[in-house]
Amino acid sequence: MANIELSTQPYKGTRDFYPREMTLRNWFFGKIRERLQLCCFEEYGGPMLESLDIYIAKSGEELAGEQTYNFEDRGGRRLAVRPEMTPTVARMVAGKLGELSFPLRWFSIPNLYRYERPQRGRLREHWQVNVDIFGADGFEADTEVISTAVSLLDALGAKKDMYRVHINNRRFFNDVICSLCGTDAEGAKKISKVIDRKGKVGREAYEKDMIALGVSADMIAKLDSVYSMSVTEAAALCPDSQGAAELLGLFSMLDKLGLSEVCEFDFGIIRGLDYYTGTVFEVFDTSPENNRAMFGGGRYDNLVGLFVKNAHVSGVGFGFGDVTLENFLVTHNLIPDDLYTGRAKVLVTRFDGIDYETYADLAAKIREAGVACTVYNGQQRKIGKELDYAGKAGFTHAVTMGTDEKAAGIVKVKNLSRREEKTVAVPDLADPKVFD
Amino acid sequence: MANIELSTQPYKGTRDFYPREMTLRNWFFGKIRERLQLCCFEEYGGPMLESLDIYIAKSGEELAGEQTYNFEDRGGRRLAVRPEMTPTVARMVAGKLGELSFPLRWFSIPNLYRYERPQRGRLREHWQVNVDIFGADGFEADTEVISTAVSLLDALGAKKDMYRVHINNRRFFNDVICSLCGTDAEGAKKISKVIDRKGKVGREAYEKDMIALGVSADMIAKLDSVYSMSVTEAAALCPDSQGAAELLGLFSMLDKLGLSEVCEFDFGIIRGLDYYTGTVFEVFDTSPENNRAMFGGGRYDNLVGLFVKNAHVSGVGFGFGDVTLENFLVTHNLIPDDLYTGRAKVLVTRFDGIDYETYADLAAKIREAGVACTVYNGQQRKIGKELDYAGKAGFTHAVTMGTDEKAAGIVKVKNLSRREEKTVAVPDLADPKVFD
Repeated sequence: MANIELSTQPYKGTRDFYPREMTLRNWFFGKIRERLQLCCFEEYGGPMLESLDIYIAKSGEELAGEQTYNFEDRGGRRLAVRPEMTPTVARMVAGKLGELSFPLRWFSIPNLYRYERPQRGRLREHWQVNVDIFGADGFEADTEVISTAVSLLDALGAKKDMYRVHINNRRFFNDVICSLCGTDAEGAKKISKVIDRKGKVGREAYEKDMIALGVSADMIAKLDSVYSMSVTEAAALCPDSQGAAELLGLFSMLDKLGLSEVCEFDFGIIRGLDYYTGTVFEVFDTSPENNRAMFGGGRYDNLVGLFVKNAHVSGVGFGFGDVTLENFLVTHNLIPDDLYTGRAKVLVTRFDGIDYETYADLAAKIREAGVACTVYNGQQRKIGKELDYAGKAGFTHAVTMGTDEKAAGIVKVKNLSRREEKTVAVPDLADPKVFD
Repeated sequence: MANIELSTQPYKGTRDFYPREMTLRNWFFGKIRERLQLCCFEEYGGPMLESLDIYIAKSGEELAGEQTYNFEDRGGRRLAVRPEMTPTVARMVAGKLGELSFPLRWFSIPNLYRYERPQRGRLREHWQVNVDIFGADGFEADTEVISTAVSLLDALGAKKDMYRVHINNRRFFNDVICSLCGTDAEGAKKISKVIDRKGKVGREAYEKDMIALGVSADMIAKLDSVYSMSVTEAAALCPDSQGAAELLGLFSMLDKLGLSEVCEFDFGIIRGLDYYTGTVFEVFDTSPENNRAMFGGGRYDNLVGLFVKNAHVSGVGFGFGDVTLENFLVTHNLIPDDLYTGRAKVLVTRFDGIDYETYADLAAKIREAGVACTVYNGQQRKIGKELDYAGKAGFTHAVTMGTDEKAAGIVKVKNLSRREEKTVAVPDLADPKVFD
């Protein structure tokens, strides 16, 4: 082995999941997986390395090249460590277009790599639930995707006042700009870009850029007013817009499903410019401490077409990352108190005078009852040290048997948190209630 | 979006997991996770990208450079897509040496990347269960690791005649070579390398290489004879060897735990040269169709020391990949027949005359009973087509409600595999037995 000074830190922007962190991640993704399966979504998975080309095709050379970890293999193939799951799933759908039955209801929980400066809620490696419906064009599917997002928060114990779903429609957004600024689709695209940057550049620069595109102060004021309109008021601005009809249809259906309480129209939701084609939404945390968009999604209608010419498979879905999810759970105190101690975990301690296999038999009996159990296998054979270890290593109970107990066919069962001890006959260890 | 001819194939040596394949992977890793937790192993996770240095430190520049996907980030850091989990876990243990309570019992199920020519059972990306005990020096831990490996096969339904555990000891192996070839540790190391290559180079080249190292034909014959010896006979060759004592102790304990039936001594098990320090084992499939080593492991005593000078944390464990595991399950017909259809999955079909929300209410009621359910959200609104879709998309039941049924407060529940239909009152949908 070489002599290198090695760091024990994980690579910048990535995390180690020690058992405690892993338990938490497994808990919330387990709840999410269970709920998605209850809603008939099927899990899929794809490779961590993909051809860089699929990201270039979706996002352009610059974005794909800059924001991904990419390199060439020895055959000169340009590979990327996947930065998102959508190109992979579009590729997979395209690859079995003739065999799959649409609508598809798919989800995945991949880890993803983005090459960017790590910051709160944005790391270089994160895990993301991806939920998509492919091949369902009606806004029933949009409604279902939004209700599924809400359902996942519900599965994690979130109350309705903890989050809010902000909804817009990209087609409607474009139509409003065309109508209020008196421009065509091409002009609207340029204006959209300026609007998208508004938050970053500040009000003054925004107005200057708008005026440079021929948008008058009056038009800017009219646009400003849309942000405080109800969905009905806003839709009335473009009565013939397909996007307006979609938006009204969606809100009507959300209302009938009892979801209007947690949903609102928000003209400020755009979500990038080259990807979404219809409904777009973002879910906000309502807590003053964490008041931010947690995740979002929407309808995109042409990704499968990147792989198969003339394929028309619509998609609508969302992605939800583990970092923002965990912030939300912590902020609202939604992590169960007994997450780490709720299930019994039993250590059988050892005395030197008794054979290992005697203890192994006890452990096997306890495991047969479905209770997690193992025999102490460290070198230190002093009961105090072993019990000390049991507590620190996360065991909930310790079973002790000395020579007297062995002769009598009994053991002592110690509840480590309650510091209670009881005597149990060996055959009774098969009863899981012993470790309640 | 750019105009590139995009392939729908995954990158060479990697796999897409469509829902059917994912269900299988989730099933066997789920069983394994459950069993490991029952044995008090705790799950951890680490990042997909690591500093290349940790692999170089373990395996040398050449091996780490050639067999990993590696590249430089923009800060000039040399990164690798992890080819194995052991350096990561050693780094993590080293990083919290003072806080962790030993012995640690840890497992992980990471995906790993190896840069090599894909072949049967060896792909570029695979998933691997990694099980390790850190900080337990006695052969109780070796025994436990072997019994855990057996227990995982048992959890997957394997019978005792389907596999066999071949066991050796690296210390013993070296001592036998020193003793039979009359050489020291340095000489034994060179001879070991030749023995390790025996299978690849063939008998003739092997003998030539041995003789070149001063090993006589007589010594070679003596070495040959060890391969057919019992563990007691072999141990008698070096009565003072610590390795022999370890091996005898291990076999005695395996016998007491009832494991000798599936375990045998095999002097041919070496498992690489620079890593393992004591017990080594490999689990073989006994089927004539798939007669090969499936996975293995052993004791390695100095990995944490790569990160923290003078740290002495022993490790013993094994890794088990999904590709070989799946081959084993298929060969022995261990995949449950009802894996894909065992749980009810209900599609609520739609007629045009009835509102979506009426059907959504039915679906919500069925889900409340814990049964997976959703409403058909495709465009085609013809009952025959919807039922056809239900069958193809993996639903087990369809619920239909026309205007007459709606008026009567009933639905029809169709079992799609048995082709049976029954009439159910709407409130009774809350009973999961309806979908038995």
